[in-house]
Amino acid sequence: METLQEILQRNEKNAHKEYFTFLSFPSVSSEEIYKKDLLNCQKWLTKYIEEIGLKTEVWKTPVHPVIFASYEVSPDQPTLLIYNHYDVQPSDPLPLWETPPFEPRVKDGEVYARGAQDNKGQCFYVLQALKTLFLRDGKLPINIKLCIEGEEENGSVGLEAILESKREALKADYLAIVDLGIPSKDTPAITLGVRGIVTMDLEVEGSNVDLHSGSHGGAVFNPIHALVKLLNSLRDEQGKISVPGFYDAIVEMNQSEKEQIDFSFNEEKYRTEFNAEASGGEKTLPAGIRLGLRPTVEINGIWGGYTGDGFKTVIPAKAFAKISCRLVPNQDPMKIGQLVKDFLEKQAPKGLRVKVNIHPGGGPSARSNPSSKVVKAFSKAYSEVFQKPCRFILSGASIPIVTKLSETSGAETVLVGLGLPTDRIHAPNEHFGLDRIEKGTLIMARAIELLANTQKA
Amino acid sequence: METLQEILQRNEKNAHKEYFTFLSFPSVSSEEIYKKDLLNCQKWLTKYIEEIGLKTEVWKTPVHPVIFASYEVSPDQPTLLIYNHYDVQPSDPLPLWETPPFEPRVKDGEVYARGAQDNKGQCFYVLQALKTLFLRDGKLPINIKLCIEGEEENGSVGLEAILESKREALKADYLAIVDLGIPSKDTPAITLGVRGIVTMDLEVEGSNVDLHSGSHGGAVFNPIHALVKLLNSLRDEQGKISVPGFYDAIVEMNQSEKEQIDFSFNEEKYRTEFNAEASGGEKTLPAGIRLGLRPTVEINGIWGGYTGDGFKTVIPAKAFAKISCRLVPNQDPMKIGQLVKDFLEKQAPKGLRVKVNIHPGGGPSARSNPSSKVVKAFSKAYSEVFQKPCRFILSGASIPIVTKLSETSGAETVLVGLGLPTDRIHAPNEHFGLDRIEKGTLIMARAIELLANTQKA
Repeated sequence: METLQEILQRNEKNAHKEYFTFLSFPSVSSEEIYKKDLLNCQKWLTKYIEEIGLKTEVWKTPVHPVIFASYEVSPDQPTLLIYNHYDVQPSDPLPLWETPPFEPRVKDGEVYARGAQDNKGQCFYVLQALKTLFLRDGKLPINIKLCIEGEEENGSVGLEAILESKREALKADYLAIVDLGIPSKDTPAITLGVRGIVTMDLEVEGSNVDLHSGSHGGAVFNPIHALVKLLNSLRDEQGKISVPGFYDAIVEMNQSEKEQIDFSFNEEKYRTEFNAEASGGEKTLPAGIRLGLRPTVEINGIWGGYTGDGFKTVIPAKAFAKISCRLVPNQDPMKIGQLVKDFLEKQAPKGLRVKVNIHPGGGPSARSNPSSKVVKAFSKAYSEVFQKPCRFILSGASIPIVTKLSETSGAETVLVGLGLPTDRIHAPNEHFGLDRIEKGTLIMARAIELLANTQKA
Repeated sequence: METLQEILQRNEKNAHKEYFTFLSFPSVSSEEIYKKDLLNCQKWLTKYIEEIGLKTEVWKTPVHPVIFASYEVSPDQPTLLIYNHYDVQPSDPLPLWETPPFEPRVKDGEVYARGAQDNKGQCFYVLQALKTLFLRDGKLPINIKLCIEGEEENGSVGLEAILESKREALKADYLAIVDLGIPSKDTPAITLGVRGIVTMDLEVEGSNVDLHSGSHGGAVFNPIHALVKLLNSLRDEQGKISVPGFYDAIVEMNQSEKEQIDFSFNEEKYRTEFNAEASGGEKTLPAGIRLGLRPTVEINGIWGGYTGDGFKTVIPAKAFAKISCRLVPNQDPMKIGQLVKDFLEKQAPKGLRVKVNIHPGGGPSARSNPSSKVVKAFSKAYSEVFQKPCRFILSGASIPIVTKLSETSGAETVLVGLGLPTDRIHAPNEHFGLDRIEKGTLIMARAIELLANTQKA
């Protein structure tokens, strides 16, 4: 019998072609103009999954469609639900890409394209694992369900809206969220938690029209001044968030839980790789702890007034910002959003209008149990493929749908993936290694094998 | 003999057509793509002035060309140099214009177009005054020189560079800067001073690439956070500018000078017209004083991160702002620019790169003497045409070239115009009244008559 590696090698060229086709769809979920490309991507992917040997359904949602696929080998075997997403982040700023974001290129074994890692690369090796198992055995050892949404980068609003109606279809023993990473190329690790998130828009209005900064400067209150004042008030000199009640709900992780987790953070590598200092957030805590265990208030966009060539002496009518908060266990996204909204709106200077619009689609922080069967199976698979003991880590990122998908499916959850901090996801020149496509395929296939004949606790 | 009014009425239709043609050139000086339109505007205007009866020259500069025109009636008559500019501000944000900015439309007697007032409207009535005097008398009563630059909205760098070489050509007894305004439609007023200006760009760099705000939030120092902190540090809670040394050079205006000037400010009208509160600047001073006598630090543009639809959880590599300072007498633009630069750069948080680039082309504040012959002549002309006593006011705006042009020409200077605070210059839906085109023509013609047979003090 051919081994999985042999099958992979035999199909390598074809697999790379298929991966590149997947990457060539500009399936940006947050921008209306890409709606058609997103649908084309969904159609291509659905067909691809059918051909592997799963039954597929396309679930309509109020926003973008979800691909659902299923395979049943036996009612006596456990069911593993695997989550991925086929949508990607916008590609701007476009001029900073060295090669076009939707024309994948390989350089030193790394594939450069928007979505190369997040999440098309990670989705692709899941599908390769299923395909390879089918090729070797003609069947899969356990029941498999796939839930591949088209809107993770835009808050999973659509999937969330239909979850309740799909409770039966999504029922599973185990849930693998394949959208995470490992600390470095040679370090196998499983993520025990992600942060939650809530996002909002801030608008400050000072007048009904742009005003000349000579004729009006010193008279009118410039809304950009109000904006920077409001935004600066969000954090104190120690980097602590100043919003009253922001930290109140947090339940601290206990010492024995902390000891299982690798909080190391390589500041030197950070300087080399990003020309950046790990000097953000709370000054009293090390970077690894801040990333894993502490919430943030982050300004993700700011704009107002004249931003072109030369100069325009304008006091704009309005100024804007986009704000997100990363959350830790027990912080409720909507409650935190409301605290920030109230804090900012109450500070409106006399005569200025301050409005905060909290976006739907946030999600709470999620944690998995390191002693669960699904975490143990994946941990063993990682250790075998990497030939090194698998670690536990926490991710600073958010996958808003995790908690709700866990509840709906009733499954034990594991958070896995092979992303690296240096993959430049959400940034120009995103990339993912072809070696990791292979490793991911082997890990997924091995974990699936290990889950055969188990039952969740 | 026909009166000036009769001549104006006879030519009204043609004059309006010519004014609209002048407005139809998108002569934006600060944006490279309009270079050709700006040159076309210059060519049209040069020809127009030739046809009125003046000799013209086009002066090349390192940036945009200056139109110089001259007429000599007699060496015994004084020479009045008149300054205008044919360039305009950018028209963005374009969607807020009710009619296209370079297709002038008339509504209730007001002409809507970019430059309708600033400065094409005011330039146009100067030319109408000369044309009308020529039509009535076949000559002008005094020697006239015109200096019409193409770069006022971009800092007058080009004109400034050639001033010294044009000292002889620009020699004059009187200088009228026709780029100012009056407090309301029925209030004749001459401006005794304008503020100076210096502008700069601020760039804050946190990393060499945009970073994911989940994977990096709390670790890296977001450059937008640094930006808002730096910008907020420019002013204290009382609205006073916090930059050390910023106010040091200021020479306060004495009481008797103050008493000649109308500092009134209609806060109620401000609310109605702009839906804005006059709550900017120093809290301890009334708005009229702040506008006329106090300097400012104003943020005219700010940008960084994701500013499109939806949301992108990015920590950008860089964040930016455009800053201007309005200056009062004795504040040196470059010195003040350097103070602000040092203040901001010294505050760079650990690991972030803060760079301030001071633009050339700033200019100091300028003041004219209310007892000079040229101020008296214009004051009389305003009073006659409005049939009301003319007031003295200060403008918060800046015309960077004023001081240098006064020095180079050796002339007594007067700052005049018919702009209104409600003309929306530098903003969408800029407009200027056809009634003011007529008033401006009559005032200019009358002032020119009154200057005949005078000699500067």
